Amino acid sequence: MTQPWTLHDDRALPADPVTRPIAREIYQEIRDLPIVSMHGHVPVEWFADDTPFPDPAALLVTPDHYLMRMLVSQGAATLAQLGVAPLDGSGTAEADPRAIWRRFCENWKAFRGTPTRFWMEHELVTIFGVTHRPSAQTADVIYDQIAAEIAKADFRPRALLDRFNIEVIGTTDPAWASLEHHQALAAEGFGERILPTFRPDPVLHLDNPTFTRDVLATGAAAGVDVVDYATYLDALRAQRLRFKAAGGTATDHGHSTADTTPLPDDEAARLFTAAFTGKPVSAAEVSAFAAHMLFQMAAMATEDGLVMQIHPGVERGHSREMTARYGADKGYDIPFAVEYTRALRPMLEAFGHHPNFRTIVFTLDEDVYSRELAPLAGVYPAMRLGAPWWFIDSPEAMRRFRETATETAGFLNLSGFVDDTRAFCSIPARHDLARRIDAGYLARLVAEHRLDLDEAIDTAHDLTYRLPRLAYAAR
Amino acid sequence: MTQPWTLHDDRALPADPVTRPIAREIYQEIRDLPIVSMHGHVPVEWFADDTPFPDPAALLVTPDHYLMRMLVSQGAATLAQLGVAPLDGSGTAEADPRAIWRRFCENWKAFRGTPTRFWMEHELVTIFGVTHRPSAQTADVIYDQIAAEIAKADFRPRALLDRFNIEVIGTTDPAWASLEHHQALAAEGFGERILPTFRPDPVLHLDNPTFTRDVLATGAAAGVDVVDYATYLDALRAQRLRFKAAGGTATDHGHSTADTTPLPDDEAARLFTAAFTGKPVSAAEVSAFAAHMLFQMAAMATEDGLVMQIHPGVERGHSREMTARYGADKGYDIPFAVEYTRALRPMLEAFGHHPNFRTIVFTLDEDVYSRELAPLAGVYPAMRLGAPWWFIDSPEAMRRFRETATETAGFLNLSGFVDDTRAFCSIPARHDLARRIDAGYLARLVAEHRLDLDEAIDTAHDLTYRLPRLAYAAR
Amino acid sequence: MTQPWTLHDDRALPADPVTRPIAREIYQEIRDLPIVSMHGHVPVEWFADDTPFPDPAALLVTPDHYLMRMLVSQGAATLAQLGVAPLDGSGTAEADPRAIWRRFCENWKAFRGTPTRFWMEHELVTIFGVTHRPSAQTADVIYDQIAAEIAKADFRPRALLDRFNIEVIGTTDPAWASLEHHQALAAEGFGERILPTFRPDPVLHLDNPTFTRDVLATGAAAGVDVVDYATYLDALRAQRLRFKAAGGTATDHGHSTADTTPLPDDEAARLFTAAFTGKPVSAAEVSAFAAHMLFQMAAMATEDGLVMQIHPGVERGHSREMTARYGADKGYDIPFAVEYTRALRPMLEAFGHHPNFRTIVFTLDEDVYSRELAPLAGVYPAMRLGAPWWFIDSPEAMRRFRETATETAGFLNLSGFVDDTRAFCSIPARHDLARRIDAGYLARLVAEHRLDLDEAIDTAHDLTYRLPRLAYAAR
Repeated sequence: MTQPWTLHDDRALPADPVTRPIAREIYQEIRDLPIVSMHGHVPVEWFADDTPFPDPAALLVTPDHYLMRMLVSQGAATLAQLGVAPLDGSGTAEADPRAIWRRFCENWKAFRGTPTRFWMEHELVTIFGVTHRPSAQTADVIYDQIAAEIAKADFRPRALLDRFNIEVIGTTDPAWASLEHHQALAAEGFGERILPTFRPDPVLHLDNPTFTRDVLATGAAAGVDVVDYATYLDALRAQRLRFKAAGGTATDHGHSTADTTPLPDDEAARLFTAAFTGKPVSAAEVSAFAAHMLFQMAAMATEDGLVMQIHPGVERGHSREMTARYGADKGYDIPFAVEYTRALRPMLEAFGHHPNFRTIVFTLDEDVYSRELAPLAGVYPAMRLGAPWWFIDSPEAMRRFRETATETAGFLNLSGFVDDTRAFCSIPARHDLARRIDAGYLARLVAEHRLDLDEAIDTAHDLTYRLPRLAYAAR
Repeated sequence: MTQPWTLHDDRALPADPVTRPIAREIYQEIRDLPIVSMHGHVPVEWFADDTPFPDPAALLVTPDHYLMRMLVSQGAATLAQLGVAPLDGSGTAEADPRAIWRRFCENWKAFRGTPTRFWMEHELVTIFGVTHRPSAQTADVIYDQIAAEIAKADFRPRALLDRFNIEVIGTTDPAWASLEHHQALAAEGFGERILPTFRPDPVLHLDNPTFTRDVLATGAAAGVDVVDYATYLDALRAQRLRFKAAGGTATDHGHSTADTTPLPDDEAARLFTAAFTGKPVSAAEVSAFAAHMLFQMAAMATEDGLVMQIHPGVERGHSREMTARYGADKGYDIPFAVEYTRALRPMLEAFGHHPNFRTIVFTLDEDVYSRELAPLAGVYPAMRLGAPWWFIDSPEAMRRFRETATETAGFLNLSGFVDDTRAFCSIPARHDLARRIDAGYLARLVAEHRLDLDEAIDTAHDLTYRLPRLAYAAR
Repeated sequence: MTQPWTLHDDRALPADPVTRPIAREIYQEIRDLPIVSMHGHVPVEWFADDTPFPDPAALLVTPDHYLMRMLVSQGAATLAQLGVAPLDGSGTAEADPRAIWRRFCENWKAFRGTPTRFWMEHELVTIFGVTHRPSAQTADVIYDQIAAEIAKADFRPRALLDRFNIEVIGTTDPAWASLEHHQALAAEGFGERILPTFRPDPVLHLDNPTFTRDVLATGAAAGVDVVDYATYLDALRAQRLRFKAAGGTATDHGHSTADTTPLPDDEAARLFTAAFTGKPVSAAEVSAFAAHMLFQMAAMATEDGLVMQIHPGVERGHSREMTARYGADKGYDIPFAVEYTRALRPMLEAFGHHPNFRTIVFTLDEDVYSRELAPLAGVYPAMRLGAPWWFIDSPEAMRRFRETATETAGFLNLSGFVDDTRAFCSIPARHDLARRIDAGYLARLVAEHRLDLDEAIDTAHDLTYRLPRLAYAAR
């Protein structure tokens, strides 16, 4: 590699010579559209404080569990060696960011064929101007180049919002969030650009070890004195409205299953009281209550118009030892099969035609796209089918999603592109990749005379910008 | 769009410049083959009475639940606004067919990427000579053009059989059908062209609210006085023979699961008698009896040689409110995962090598093609794997079917193309699309030197014509 | 077909004119690499005795259950007519190998679109120099040509190892194997080329009708007097070490599910003793003990370093009548869905980060690649994801595997190509096909500018040679 490392303009566009020029034409029409990023995990503090990023490793490695899990799987590093501090006293985190960065660069090969490869090379080249392919030999020079860039004033989080062309970004906030950062940001003119998202999972799951504390905190934030099931619902209702007042348009629900079966009120009250007062609750009761509360969240959504995001089917912390050592969200969350047709039925029968209700349903199980989710989104007006998420936010999986979901749901029953990341700098890369894959898919439809070019360009606009705006608009 | 709206000759053929000419050559060989349409849902009365179609909406919109469900999902129309009369007194159906047609044309965009788009443009252009892309602006002129066409004498149902080059069409008829229409048609020379299909689902499911009435009607049609389980079986056996005498070659079974486990005779008799005499039967007993009767249908098939079609895995009437309001088959049927390997085992162990037995198994769960159905069809002589059905009768899904089923089952263990629709005018469009997709798949095998061109053309003939004829031939 | 039958150099490479030349370049780099065949089912006796193959049918038809099941499914032959002797006295096997061969050639059409077609034409042309497409007319001349070839001295099993460029081949051996053949081969210099694989399924499943006898045989082979659960474990541990001493590097586990939940020791001992002494054990107990023993196998692997292969999810002998008549492994094994995320959790939590443990997990359920297996292999250092296996060792399925597994697991967490066959002559054909499909997939990544050409070639080497060597290296 004596030539400088560059990116090809046509990367991730289809190879065949008939389709590629069409894809290029479609992509050109959408490449510079603003980014709508409604399902983000960047901490709101980054924007509220607008402090510089400390170093390349803290910016690009440690917040990215895709990247860390690959290095762990190859035995190339422990999480501690990547800068994650053990919580269990089993050792200390690597303190030298340059050493962390080197481990990543030395193992660049491991990322071949993964979306991390695409995102990272996009970031390195287009954001930092890197001209060397990462390797043991080039790690230090790349490190220095990134370090120099992030030291600049225009590399603070708020400046990046402009540089990345992010029109709006959602954060993820617990049910008990004070929302003070969002309020401060709103006072500085960011009120319609940085939006909170209501994520109540811990206060809907009775087996949460800090359930009572979290419920009380939610009540405190909402100004509701929670003493029983009725006041618990009041606190949730009030706090949802506070999120909405702070610009929030959506809620986010990561339950184990998609079950939405409501319980009789007195049974729900009994279960709540038991957990709230520290009495034992069985695993089956935990599940039943979570399903019941998902139904209640939908009911509240018909009142306040917040859009309800559902993404079940993940076994969190698959290795309990590693999760105890390093905490949650470190790469040990593993999907499993989840049923939707019967699970969503209670909610969709009750609210699926309600003019004020909107739910966006995500999955990590690709098989349900053609079998369950596209058929459901293709008839219930309240439902939109979410973009491929997490592990399947990747070129081949996005292409499969278009091929399996569109034929039954059409394009207009989809959420459009939704990113989902803690890795801030990957956001433009992720949107760019999605735009390229969509351009390629639409170009194929044009090349196969299944869609006219004007329709393809219009649909590309929809998928990139209009549909996410529409899907996440509070009702 | 100032140019007239036309269809490209190569639509739905592969884009790449090596494969397309091969696909075109294969397609030319099969495009004009007669249509074999053995799994239809067009009412036999249409042919028996041969009355003109009333208007464009009644011909093209209201019988097409794919089309209606998309408009409902977009909030663009209620079913009543599309001409479906509410059964529950909640309002009245739109009476103006032109208003229904306008709603469809205004929402043409919603069908992008769906097979409905392909079928409908095929119909509009090739059957009605429409030269405008549907839109709010063009709705009326298109309406008038279609209305003028369907008023012509050569647009009656029987004339369309010739025009569409339909060599044979099956209808779907309840177990208690008198078959008078088929007998009348036979007397007029349509006996080998319009065939009844025995569909006994309601008399095999003990939770059918009109079970007793339907069983008695079946007995009456068969000339059997049903008083117990033995005479019930007699009635089914006799009525199957009456279907066969009327030209029928197949039965059709839409159970919830694929379970074929037989019960002991006395247990089956006990359950039948309970339901027949109005006594309560549990959900588990309903399922067990349905499985038992699927086994019995297979046993009877070894006697009378009728081909047994099985297509489980659909939750019918997912929204009970909408189903109560508008009736069955209005777009609210949603698939779910179904297991076949163990479910079909009792039937296949008993009859899978019987020279007189033939079963065609369909699925809406694409995952089972490579995992269960192709392996089963690839060893049991009695089983053929049905074409992608319903939601997956679409370009991408048909392509996936070829790619996932062929490698294990080969081509000769498949049913060949089978349409499945109430929308009469869509039949030639559906067959044309399937022929194009098959030509494209076979062309890729040729271009990749995995099949010789003469073999590909021969196989295209098989898939289009010979295999459906063979699969549905009574034994 | 007046021209001689030949194979195109570019067969199974992508058709599009941009991708094909890249694929060709990659393929050229790997086509002549040695074959690593660590998961084989060729009987060790063939190599130990090195006797000539008797005739074309015994070499190519009767050991190949893919081939036989297709002929059976088409009603073109019974297994007896293909040379399989009925065990139940229901008749006799066809004794004339030429008649068997004719049946195969007459039905050559049935294999269109299947991998058997690719493998067999590769074998016929490249090994035997056949120049006629198989058919009823050409059957005899082809038979004679093959018969002449296999009569030559250089067509003995050991000579074929060289001719096929097989660097190493694994056999599959029962837990009670004496390993005398492997020892004899080692004495003749084949010790690092022909390796035993420890396959203990029958002694881990308490419902095995000959469980006690097989356990005692295992103990006898190991030199351990098995009298209880503790000595049973001792025998397994000792026999594993004997396999390792004979060159073995791996164990192989074909359980029904992937469950690895350990039991309390006293419960395991109780179940063992019950079965060992002929007392009844329930189906649930059989499953629980099998899961427990899978966990124990992993525990032993951390001690002896043997690589643990797991491939669950097959209903063996789906037709009990045919299995009773013709024996196991005759085409009646049918896959079903299996869960891995929760099933493998006990094993992966306990040993997934152990430096001495390596497990390779296979599946026949393609849906789990993106949902479960790639996410697991992409984080646990001890796990590698096995190549598509059995029915899915085919062009389209291998391509799907690359597309669904790579994005989350990367290439380096895969096993690389692994064949799995009793059909010795198909081994080079299988490896050639896999190399072509991999070259095509990597070429697409290059053509889409998602990977550089030097990286693609390096990865092709990995997948073909280095990764299987690495995955199967005893720890």
